[in-house]
This record gives sequence, C-alpha cells and structure tokens, in this order.
Amino acid sequence: MPVTLINTFKVPAEQEQEFLKRWSETTSVYARTSGFIETHMHRNTGVGNPTFNYINIAVWASSEAFLQAHKDYVPGEESIPGIEFHPALYEEIIMTRNLLLTQSAGKE
Amino acid sequence: MPVTLINTFKVPAEQEQEFLKRWSETTSVYARTSGFIETHMHRNTGVGNPTFNYINIAVWASSEAFLQAHKDYVPGEESIPGIEFHPALYEEIIMTRNLLLTQSAGKE
Repeated sequence: MPVTLINTFKVPAEQEQEFLKRWSETTSVYARTSGFIETHMHRNTGVGNPTFNYINIAVWASSEAFLQAHKDYVPGEESIPGIEFHPALYEEIIMTRNLLLTQSAGKE
Repeated sequence: MPVTLINTFKVPAEQEQEFLKRWSETTSVYARTSGFIETHMHRNTGVGNPTFNYINIAVWASSEAFLQAHKDYVPGEESIPGIEFHPALYEEIIMTRNLLLTQSAGKE
C-alpha cells in the first residue's frame, strides 16, 4: 500500500541554496529507485507560522521500500549544519471537499 | 492562485479523540466556506520521526480566502490544552516522479 512521507525542515537561511542542491541530488537518486513514486518540495510563502521553511511530501510504494532506499542512500541534506528535519510516514485518515462546489457540480 | 496550507500538530495522546472531533467541526464549517477547496488529515503511522502525530494538508483558492475564513471562524482544536501547531501557506517549488516509471510508460 502506498505511504506518504512528510518531512518538515528548518533550514538556516544561509544554507537554503545548499539544502536545495543536496535535496535535488537525493531526489535524482531516488528517482531511479524502485518503490519511489513521486516527491513534491514545498516552500513557506511567509503567510502563517515561519517555523518550517521547507516541507517535502513524497509517495513511496511501501514503508519497506522507503526504509530500504534510505539505508542504501543517506540524504546529503541531512548533514547540513544547523538543519532540523522530522521525516515520518503518514496515512490519510480524513478527506473533505468543499460541499458547495460538490453540490453545484450535482455530485452531492 | 490556489495555495497549500500545511499544518503540523503535536497532540497530547489523551487529547487525540477531542482533537479529531474539534478538527472535524472546523472542517464542516470550512466545507461551506467560499475559497476552501479540500483538506486531507494525515496520521503518523509510527514509521520515522514521532514529533508530529497529525499533519493537515489543505488547498484554498487564495491566501486572502484562507486568512478571512480563519478570522470568521477560529478553529476549536487550537485551544486544546497542550496542543502545538504550525499552520502556514506553502507553494510547490519542485516536483519529481520516478524516472523508471516515466520511461516505461514512454513519456520520458
């Protein structure tokens, strides 16, 4: 069953360029790894809480595939001085769409 | 332009049921609010970093719509004792799919 990796990053301002460089290197490895499906890097727009300036959301085919890939290749961005990160696998438990949009589309 | 809200939650174990109840109440209000598009609540599976046991990912039509809705209705889950949360709007800056899958589908 596919799993969702969500990884919240606190990247020191002076390390942002290096962070994105190393993260892209990691991604280019995983992009050729069995079990990796896709990844989406998000940057904080400045609206709301500033704690996490980057959040990565990725999909892996299974938790086993995710764990094996991270044994075979340790992400280089994790060794950037001052970085904090919190990678974990998540499952979606509730999904809700706008009911007005649903109703206007006749799908209520 | 649509924006992505990502909100990481640290919910005390004894408050998880109350958290999900209040979050669902909030969602039922926003589900009838203009500018709200959809929301996805995720629970930590226990694989990886345990810091955030819940992460919500939502899509709003604009940052203005998001901010207005949160002025008009303050989410009840935010006043749960001991809870920590970090809501912010994010933009996707990089998206990568598995190249092996792409190639096998002839879309390289």
